[in-house]
Amino acid sequence: MIDCGEGTQVQMRNLRIRFNRLGHIFITHLHGDHCFGLPGLISTLGMLGRTGDLVIHGPKELSTFLNCVLTEFCRGLEFKVIFEPVDTTVHSLVMEDRSLSVYSIPLKHRIPTCGYLFSEKPKEPHIIREMTDFYQVPIKWMKDIKQGKDYITPEGETIPNSWLTRPAEPPKRYAFCSDTAYNPSIIPIIEGVDLLYHEATFAESDEARAKETFHSTACQAATIARDAHVKKLMIGHYSARYEDCSILKQEADTIFPETILANEGLVFPLIP
Amino acid sequence: MIDCGEGTQVQMRNLRIRFNRLGHIFITHLHGDHCFGLPGLISTLGMLGRTGDLVIHGPKELSTFLNCVLTEFCRGLEFKVIFEPVDTTVHSLVMEDRSLSVYSIPLKHRIPTCGYLFSEKPKEPHIIREMTDFYQVPIKWMKDIKQGKDYITPEGETIPNSWLTRPAEPPKRYAFCSDTAYNPSIIPIIEGVDLLYHEATFAESDEARAKETFHSTACQAATIARDAHVKKLMIGHYSARYEDCSILKQEADTIFPETILANEGLVFPLIP
Repeated sequence: MIDCGEGTQVQMRNLRIRFNRLGHIFITHLHGDHCFGLPGLISTLGMLGRTGDLVIHGPKELSTFLNCVLTEFCRGLEFKVIFEPVDTTVHSLVMEDRSLSVYSIPLKHRIPTCGYLFSEKPKEPHIIREMTDFYQVPIKWMKDIKQGKDYITPEGETIPNSWLTRPAEPPKRYAFCSDTAYNPSIIPIIEGVDLLYHEATFAESDEARAKETFHSTACQAATIARDAHVKKLMIGHYSARYEDCSILKQEADTIFPETILANEGLVFPLIP
Repeated sequence: MIDCGEGTQVQMRNLRIRFNRLGHIFITHLHGDHCFGLPGLISTLGMLGRTGDLVIHGPKELSTFLNCVLTEFCRGLEFKVIFEPVDTTVHSLVMEDRSLSVYSIPLKHRIPTCGYLFSEKPKEPHIIREMTDFYQVPIKWMKDIKQGKDYITPEGETIPNSWLTRPAEPPKRYAFCSDTAYNPSIIPIIEGVDLLYHEATFAESDEARAKETFHSTACQAATIARDAHVKKLMIGHYSARYEDCSILKQEADTIFPETILANEGLVFPLIP
């Protein structure tokens, strides 16, 4: 989960997202709309009988609030809440597991803030079962073949790896950048990602207000997307002043046509 | 406002309740579903440009959480948040203003908890304008007449007060009791209130669970209502296990037929 505003647990229930699938929460910064849902979510996980660790990553300043919540409200919790402070000023590895690496993306906001880059690790190629059966490849060879080696038959014949495998899907990358002023220094970090979520709080007519509050306009988000050659841009975090956000999409589209408007409950598959 | 669970500010918006009408918040106890909405509500009041004081009443343990929220998230707030600790173990005056007195009601829960009794102050009787005009009562007499005096005409004739006034509406009293185990010691405090809100977390079949968790059954709430001779009982705080809460009303009705089921957004007028 990235950020956890007030009411997150209610939305999870509404959208039937399973609480026990949640292992890591990445907090971008300490404004209430990005973290005031943590106390309720942690308490609810406790009441649901969770036992596995919950890891929360975020700016070091978050620890004071978390400790207060855990001490005042969560005594007797049967799972550990592990806080991992993130240095919001540098681009560095935040966590990794078998299949995924997560990196910080330094952003420019009124308080320490970072985005997160989710980068799948390359996957092994798929074995073409029909071919390995045909050549009667022994099981003990499979690991080597998955790693790209050709198969040598007992008769000394070489079966090229490309006959036996088909390439894995290319690893996917997703970058989440909110909240931030226009900040082209993130471009090398997010270069070519499959999906960029970038805040677009304001329309062009409110560009001065965007600068003043360290937010972005839809055009600025689209400029970042275009210059970083991302595949898709999703914008969000709209100011409440826009009843109809289609103006933001229209403005972004003039610079980067592959723009989607984020919305509550929207599911956007990265793997079609 | 009594209690402030997560998402309270969202519900206020949905129900079009005006944020600037809010002066005092009464917190019953420090479980998340009763106070996790405070950080978001206070932040939102700040962003709406509030300048008037906000007074929060609640168990003294609340101050740690409040201070943490105010220090970590609310620097530069342009209004004061004043915390008034409430002794949950005694029935005593919590606040009063020109028209209202609020008292604590000691409850029995797993942690320090109190309910609140809202008691209107008696109002002055209404002057019957037609009668005071008829007897040409001078303005300077009006204050005395409102306080029950008869009018003496310049000719020495006595006009009885009852000819000149009609009684004010009787003062209304509302008691809020959640969360609590069955606790008949509150009966003298809430005797005869116009409306008693009492928690009814469980049905009769779960009475053992109610006892264990220091909650009440619908029948227990109704017993309190009957024995305290209240005019109406509103039950709420239902366990999520009951998809249909009508069983709770049915059970309460067997003991106290003037029972209403609380529900999100329900408005129940005390003055018809």
